Amino acid sequence: MNTSRTEAFSDGVFAIAATLLVLELKIPHVEAGELLGALLEQWPSYATYAVSFLTIGIIWVNHHTIMDRVRRVDRPLLFINLVFLMLVAAIPFPTALLADYLNEGHDDRLAAAIYGGTMWAMGLAICAIWAYVVRGGLLHEGVDRDLARRSLRILQWVSQPTR
Amino acid sequence: MNTSRTEAFSDGVFAIAATLLVLELKIPHVEAGELLGALLEQWPSYATYAVSFLTIGIIWVNHHTIMDRVRRVDRPLLFINLVFLMLVAAIPFPTALLADYLNEGHDDRLAAAIYGGTMWAMGLAICAIWAYVVRGGLLHEGVDRDLARRSLRILQWVSQPTR
Amino acid sequence: MNTSRTEAFSDGVFAIAATLLVLELKIPHVEAGELLGALLEQWPSYATYAVSFLTIGIIWVNHHTIMDRVRRVDRPLLFINLVFLMLVAAIPFPTALLADYLNEGHDDRLAAAIYGGTMWAMGLAICAIWAYVVRGGLLHEGVDRDLARRSLRILQWVSQPTR
Amino acid sequence: MNTSRTEAFSDGVFAIAATLLVLELKIPHVEAGELLGALLEQWPSYATYAVSFLTIGIIWVNHHTIMDRVRRVDRPLLFINLVFLMLVAAIPFPTALLADYLNEGHDDRLAAAIYGGTMWAMGLAICAIWAYVVRGGLLHEGVDRDLARRSLRILQWVSQPTR
Repeated sequence: MNTSRTEAFSDGVFAIAATLLVLELKIPHVEAGELLGALLEQWPSYATYAVSFLTIGIIWVNHHTIMDRVRRVDRPLLFINLVFLMLVAAIPFPTALLADYLNEGHDDRLAAAIYGGTMWAMGLAICAIWAYVVRGGLLHEGVDRDLARRSLRILQWVSQPTR
Repeated sequence: MNTSRTEAFSDGVFAIAATLLVLELKIPHVEAGELLGALLEQWPSYATYAVSFLTIGIIWVNHHTIMDRVRRVDRPLLFINLVFLMLVAAIPFPTALLADYLNEGHDDRLAAAIYGGTMWAMGLAICAIWAYVVRGGLLHEGVDRDLARRSLRILQWVSQPTR
Repeated sequence: MNTSRTEAFSDGVFAIAATLLVLELKIPHVEAGELLGALLEQWPSYATYAVSFLTIGIIWVNHHTIMDRVRRVDRPLLFINLVFLMLVAAIPFPTALLADYLNEGHDDRLAAAIYGGTMWAMGLAICAIWAYVVRGGLLHEGVDRDLARRSLRILQWVSQPTR
Repeated sequence: MNTSRTEAFSDGVFAIAATLLVLELKIPHVEAGELLGALLEQWPSYATYAVSFLTIGIIWVNHHTIMDRVRRVDRPLLFINLVFLMLVAAIPFPTALLADYLNEGHDDRLAAAIYGGTMWAMGLAICAIWAYVVRGGLLHEGVDRDLARRSLRILQWVSQPTR
């Protein structure tokens, strides 16, 4: 299987997940003259919308940077990529959770931890894609294998919890 | 009609159906300190999200495996494929149904039967696509026709209810 | 402007409009043992889901049949196509309206008239695309112009209200 | 990075944002015989749906007109494009806000100002894309650089607030 199909499907999930974020922006229904205040009070929704949209965008760029170096896609890689996309597609949920509980003023640390945890899991999944590609010999001919292997050692060192 | 259009449209439906699943994850609105419990109580939503997302992903891989062996798409195949996509696009509904009634603690067997039934119908539809492609002579030159015909006989034997 | 961009954007709108239809299927929240009845009572939702999904699918096929005969896309054609897509993207609204009022048991004729009217307007828009392509000289070299012009006269005759 | 990926992702966001607009069209639930009146009362929803859909469509055309003149995409351009897409994807929110408050009959000027402000920010972002492409030397060989630079001066002159 070549990479173009996988990229098209992944791009679809990235674009949809990013655009669905707008559904979490709720219209406040208030009395005359109170709309501006109600909209300003919703600032956490706008902030988390922007952060999540840009995060998905940056991860989309990184995903392409990896996929451009991949020669072919095998079944395990398809599966790791699916798990990664499952986390990307889930982003609207922790985003809305964080926005709502920043607004409510309680349990916001838990919401932020869940938001951060999803982002961390997504980062871990994209590292797993890269590690599988490098170790499984799925890299393009032109890619420097030594450099690729060294990048894995750096990832390992960075993610050591005892550092 | 060549296959690339059909694949692009199908890929769109797969990606959107998978990403829409996130809309079934609801934000619980609770008192201070009760968020973690409320989120953990929703475990059936996360479980069904993951199962449905991965199922759509695996069916997407199978759909491509078939389409890679198809030379051209005729009108009946387009129609069978549409019915198949109609079932794929419907998956968020039985997924939410199963999650909600696992949570409620009653009628969960009925919800599970409907969920399983949708998956079974989707499997049947993808078998119908394959059977039509093999019998209708729409296979690529390079594909082993004997093997393809034998695969149909296995499908028939597997789906016999009296076994 | 060549047709591939226009087709990709149109395909996106078709696939999303078809897949969004599932959001109109609502989960009934009932007492133990009443789920099956509640689900069966919703039959208009399933029927309109299937009809709308297949209609969008068939119109997608027709749209491609036209676009395959188009040499290049100019600004007026882009605009007519946008108006057409605006109607395609609106289909989930009359679909949900018809399902809801078939269920309620009143005002269902009005809902059916609005549903039919949307489909009719969509049909009119795709005829307008074809008429513009034929008259504006945007057809591919290989297409039989006489046949194309005659097809327009048939469309005109079919849509005469006094017939 | 070549432009085709960026265009595919952007097209996805355009198509999804345009199609999500339909979710803001709400089904009125009324007594027998009152449906027509209730639907007609919602005219601001249909008007803003049409305006926003066509606006997204026209901006999509302009985005392609620019991208067809771009040779390659670098990291800053990707980021400016992401910010632009973030505004495009947000359009369903000010659209629903304007429709709701035109309907309510109060705070409609504020809603219109927010709607206009989003459109203005989107226009500014697409000008920023063009300005970056022209100044950053990312134009295709065949594009007239003098004309491109003059277009920037016109944009600057048009957007001067003291005019």
